[in-house]
Amino acid sequence: MKIDPTTITIKEVGPRDGLQNEAVFIPTADKIAWVNQLSHSGLSYIEVTSFVHPKWIPALADAVEVMSGIERVPGVTYAALVPNVKGLERALAAQVDEVSVFMSASETHNMKNINKTRQDTYPILAETAKAALAAGKTVRGYVSTVFGCPYEGAVPVEDVIRVTDALLEMGVQEVSLGDTIGVAHPRQVQEVLEVLLRRFPAERLAMHFHDTRGMAIANVLVSLEMGMTTFDSSLGGLGGCPYALGASGNLATDDLLYLLDGLGMQTGVDGEKLREAARLIQEKMGRPLMSHSMQACQGQEG
Amino acid sequence: MKIDPTTITIKEVGPRDGLQNEAVFIPTADKIAWVNQLSHSGLSYIEVTSFVHPKWIPALADAVEVMSGIERVPGVTYAALVPNVKGLERALAAQVDEVSVFMSASETHNMKNINKTRQDTYPILAETAKAALAAGKTVRGYVSTVFGCPYEGAVPVEDVIRVTDALLEMGVQEVSLGDTIGVAHPRQVQEVLEVLLRRFPAERLAMHFHDTRGMAIANVLVSLEMGMTTFDSSLGGLGGCPYALGASGNLATDDLLYLLDGLGMQTGVDGEKLREAARLIQEKMGRPLMSHSMQACQGQEG
Repeated sequence: MKIDPTTITIKEVGPRDGLQNEAVFIPTADKIAWVNQLSHSGLSYIEVTSFVHPKWIPALADAVEVMSGIERVPGVTYAALVPNVKGLERALAAQVDEVSVFMSASETHNMKNINKTRQDTYPILAETAKAALAAGKTVRGYVSTVFGCPYEGAVPVEDVIRVTDALLEMGVQEVSLGDTIGVAHPRQVQEVLEVLLRRFPAERLAMHFHDTRGMAIANVLVSLEMGMTTFDSSLGGLGGCPYALGASGNLATDDLLYLLDGLGMQTGVDGEKLREAARLIQEKMGRPLMSHSMQACQGQEG
Repeated sequence: MKIDPTTITIKEVGPRDGLQNEAVFIPTADKIAWVNQLSHSGLSYIEVTSFVHPKWIPALADAVEVMSGIERVPGVTYAALVPNVKGLERALAAQVDEVSVFMSASETHNMKNINKTRQDTYPILAETAKAALAAGKTVRGYVSTVFGCPYEGAVPVEDVIRVTDALLEMGVQEVSLGDTIGVAHPRQVQEVLEVLLRRFPAERLAMHFHDTRGMAIANVLVSLEMGMTTFDSSLGGLGGCPYALGASGNLATDDLLYLLDGLGMQTGVDGEKLREAARLIQEKMGRPLMSHSMQACQGQEG
């Protein structure tokens, strides 16, 4: 393992990717209080909410109110997911800093999630990116199902390249590669990144792992070794499957920080303040968060 | 990451290290049925029970009955924990194949766990090992708190060397290095193994990780890269802290297998048969097992 200490950017997606997958609706004031606490933990990037129509994501129906209501801490980028120009208008009105567009590497997942073919999705995202850039905002692109699709299984890396190419051509400054169903394993991450990094510079890519099969931290380790420096994560592992007790969804920010701190990485994040923020949202959720660090207990023998 | 496909030995410790940390008593017949199922999954090593006095581990009070009652599949080593010659006598009477002795790298943990100083523990283990070897059995040694002690914090690697040296001198053929409280992170594993592998050959050492902070799989990855080939794990992550919902204890065999299969390692273990065995003990436990693979759920977006 050759990983030299360097600066790593953690992009906190809990308020969006976490909460959108939770069954409970967190009151707007609580969401705002939580994001404000995250803003003071040293994180430099928070994905605050989603401007997808509330019909699809009722948990984030208060996107405008949350984005408008949060404190803006200098040095922190406040981002939001937007599906199209209509969503973008609301996001811009609410003073978003950066918008994220999204689509899938696999055709079937894209159809199920966006109700369009990949080919038909491009113009919608391009139009959205163009308008965001015209408004002086930066644009991020999510690619889902990079390491596997729940409907198609294996996803050819050529499809990931094609979608990433298209997003970068639209003016997206960073593409986040999502292991949507948490099937990626370290060897696969190594092989996929070997191909992608021949074509794209590491600083245009971010990794978005889910811990469904317990591989997320090991996948981060391999990504770090290959020169990746930006990782998405969700505080407390928020966004785990709401139907299965203890199931893991997003890589937990607190677990990620344990790894990065151990490696001597610079993240700027204050672990204690992060844990305070985790305890706040845990209390609001009314159930234990499922990250390892929130669950850690003492003194097992072995 | 340079990890070439090779043969890896998984040592299944669930029936001992898993069950001893669970609050529920699994009936003897169910334990036997479970071990028999594990025997047919392709595992080559099963730690079946513990001959520590039932006063200390009531969950394994039926050690003699279990060890005597299981089917012996050729090629599988059936091991058990023994604290002293008295425990050894019972283990030998029950036809154990290999015995494991144990102590801690840190003085305070050794005192709390064994009620003796490390110095006073050596002769007891030496006597036990000698008698086991005389009876034609092989001996394994567990070292606890290798990467951290719940009472003392950091543990000097010199202490790990001293205990490992002592165990090998007693005739122990393999020393299992335990991250008892699950604090080890990949950098630490790398640093500790760099020191230990200068003194001990990799084939005399095994790694025993706990997933308390979500690092176990990443720690295995680093260990593999450094040439380690033997890993302890517990099916379904059995042995999680019984007091905290969802807390992780032992590295789960099923999660470990997901990593190793992805890396192209030869383990001989049949994943489907392993899952069948996990479902059996899950049913007997009356609660969901906490391993990622037993908890995995479908289709989170991201």
